[in-house]
Amino acid sequence: MKSFRKELWFHIRHRREFINITQEVETCVRESGVQEGLVLCNAMHITASVFINDDESGLHQDYEKWLEQLAPHEPISHYQHNLTGEDNGDAHLKRQIMGREVVVAITAGRLDFGPWEQIFYGEFDGRRKKRVLVKIIGQ
Amino acid sequence: MKSFRKELWFHIRHRREFINITQEVETCVRESGVQEGLVLCNAMHITASVFINDDESGLHQDYEKWLEQLAPHEPISHYQHNLTGEDNGDAHLKRQIMGREVVVAITAGRLDFGPWEQIFYGEFDGRRKKRVLVKIIGQ
Amino acid sequence: MKSFRKELWFHIRHRREFINITQEVETCVRESGVQEGLVLCNAMHITASVFINDDESGLHQDYEKWLEQLAPHEPISHYQHNLTGEDNGDAHLKRQIMGREVVVAITAGRLDFGPWEQIFYGEFDGRRKKRVLVKIIGQ
Repeated sequence: MKSFRKELWFHIRHRREFINITQEVETCVRESGVQEGLVLCNAMHITASVFINDDESGLHQDYEKWLEQLAPHEPISHYQHNLTGEDNGDAHLKRQIMGREVVVAITAGRLDFGPWEQIFYGEFDGRRKKRVLVKIIGQ
Repeated sequence: MKSFRKELWFHIRHRREFINITQEVETCVRESGVQEGLVLCNAMHITASVFINDDESGLHQDYEKWLEQLAPHEPISHYQHNLTGEDNGDAHLKRQIMGREVVVAITAGRLDFGPWEQIFYGEFDGRRKKRVLVKIIGQ
Repeated sequence: MKSFRKELWFHIRHRREFINITQEVETCVRESGVQEGLVLCNAMHITASVFINDDESGLHQDYEKWLEQLAPHEPISHYQHNLTGEDNGDAHLKRQIMGREVVVAITAGRLDFGPWEQIFYGEFDGRRKKRVLVKIIGQ
């Protein structure tokens, strides 16, 4: 069994943004030498997501608007968590909707994807350095 | 290490429907010959889900109603994504709530499930051919 | 390839509660002897979740309040599922938001976590015995 580990680092300038990381994960798969296996790709922070969907800017605007409706950033005082001095209570909720991680099959040395699947890092509390873990196991 | 891969194809006649695929995944596990391992089961399309819950028709009606409240199909013009000519903006949101994938343990050659766990394909934009990937690794 | 399996049992006295199970999962990783691999940690029941977030009581109150807004427990008659005699229709919905499972990387024999990641069992229909599956594969 082979294993591989790499961290992808991000410093998003805005509070919220979606970044396509498919090529970076594909590069990890190639570097791992794994032909058949699984890749786990997860946010290492609890106010961010990794998810799979379409790379379409209108859809990303829809997600932004929808998540703000489901868990608005303001008023800050709406969240008990923000009594700790944070202002990111909403980000912890948004991340649960979009998810922490994806697990993707590796077949014949490639990400085994449907026609439109792309992997995104979803930042909900940016403006500082954060990271994603890519862990691969297989043969 | 052994690995196994199979696609399950669906052509749902309605826009939305939940299909129990547990037996088909169990068959994959048997065919794989894996006794101890993991099975990844994911939608290969970004307007569909694979999830685990109860095979109870009332609950499925509750999910349908609830998802329509959280991300209504209409008005179509509500979603920026639909400016591309699509009418499935809502389906991309519903799929995030229900999830893209499940990972299930294989123990002694069987799906290692609690008493009521069943695997479903959740279609949110049907009326065309779509598929689920079953990938198994283990020994 | 090594594999390991253990069930963690819970009997939560209230209907809803979040329990930090990180130490128990870390103990499983140690017992497994796996140095590089993946751990799957999933609820074996369909009205409960396993998720990763912050161990902060204010945040947990925010989750409780938010999930009650998204899928209120009452009125019981709001859910078709409750016509079966159950009163836990809401719990099946809440669990979809928070998720069934997490997959965590194992690196150098430890859970490969970011600074604040903690694993929780999320109970949405307690007052009876329920369990979580920990399955580990790797080398």
